[in-house]
Amino acid sequence: MTTPNPDAIAILGGTGDQGLGLALRFAKAGRPVVIGSRKADRALTAAEEVQKAVPGADVVGFENSEATPKARIVIISVPFEHTASTVKGIREVLAPGQILVSMAVPLATAIGDGAVRTLGIWQGSCAEMVKGLVPKGVEVVSAFQNVSAHRLQHLEDEVECDVLVSGAKDAREEVSALCELVPGLRAINGGPLSNAKIVEEITALLIGLNIRYKVPEGLGLRITGIPDAG
Amino acid sequence: MTTPNPDAIAILGGTGDQGLGLALRFAKAGRPVVIGSRKADRALTAAEEVQKAVPGADVVGFENSEATPKARIVIISVPFEHTASTVKGIREVLAPGQILVSMAVPLATAIGDGAVRTLGIWQGSCAEMVKGLVPKGVEVVSAFQNVSAHRLQHLEDEVECDVLVSGAKDAREEVSALCELVPGLRAINGGPLSNAKIVEEITALLIGLNIRYKVPEGLGLRITGIPDAG
Repeated sequence: MTTPNPDAIAILGGTGDQGLGLALRFAKAGRPVVIGSRKADRALTAAEEVQKAVPGADVVGFENSEATPKARIVIISVPFEHTASTVKGIREVLAPGQILVSMAVPLATAIGDGAVRTLGIWQGSCAEMVKGLVPKGVEVVSAFQNVSAHRLQHLEDEVECDVLVSGAKDAREEVSALCELVPGLRAINGGPLSNAKIVEEITALLIGLNIRYKVPEGLGLRITGIPDAG
Repeated sequence: MTTPNPDAIAILGGTGDQGLGLALRFAKAGRPVVIGSRKADRALTAAEEVQKAVPGADVVGFENSEATPKARIVIISVPFEHTASTVKGIREVLAPGQILVSMAVPLATAIGDGAVRTLGIWQGSCAEMVKGLVPKGVEVVSAFQNVSAHRLQHLEDEVECDVLVSGAKDAREEVSALCELVPGLRAINGGPLSNAKIVEEITALLIGLNIRYKVPEGLGLRITGIPDAG
């Protein structure tokens, strides 16, 4: 088994809007990025796109189960309805010490209803569903749900948004450090993984606000009143 | 039946921390305030407290069912576990055209568990439960859940927080206008009442953040990216 590169960040579903946005930002910050997809050729195409936008970027593309062992932190950036099958597909190649980041939101679009509503998840949240699917020793952290894909992809602008990061302390802090790679993002200690339930639902609320306020680029959120906050 | 004063704002549970905070702020902005409580003498004491803090304030205190008919907008500011009984207690005196504001959050403290978790409400949210209890012609609007009681009570400071206001358009806009009375508050169009489910849960998340970031005064939230926002 390959030892995962501690600096690399794997993004499964890195061909989608939000995953590609994160890939661009992390690549721009100089981190090695591994894009995963169900199809290797789509992952390769996305990797080339990142290289074009960020000359000199260290970015590669692989099928999901090949991408997963190459990075210590693996971000699952597929639509909610593909999250469980994606995690089941990489379970065999996950190694203790790896961190899986759940960023999907159980929007009701998964069952053909609207994006301003969510489905109730038996385990409490998408992140907790993922936690129930990974082998022992693999940590699950919830993050990035509320960050606009559009704003991530516009590399020239800051992404004005707080990221509520939830999960066990050490893993949470490692994922929080990723936020510092993206100008404008700020990691907020979102406490235990069970809080993902609330954070995921905020996305549905923000999608409704995007529509009502006619901001297709996507709104964000900030927690106010934190001492020493920049 | 008395015609409710369109300028007056009734606050049932105006003796509690958050209700008193709103009473102080609305009184300071020059609006007539009617404080309601289960006990008339406690309402009177709270009214005197407001008068002391805001000299010249137009504020009175009554038992809840006497307070209710005196204002067009009636804010229910009692703990979640007393919300249904409070609404049932005023149902007989509510008149069509009045607006009831639901600001309680179904925190698990209602059943002896912690304030960082919520109870599942059959109707979806506290606000929708209230909606099911009021006579026809009375509108229910969800607002103010995420505003810190402490910061409301400190009249010298701005309250840096967005208020997600949900409900039918006309009533929602009337309640949104109340936010402009409090420096720092900004009303956000929170869409249909069913969104109260998410807004109420955000309070539990903020309470957890207050603890983790050691900010007993209470944190707030802002939606970022709204055009023309001040």
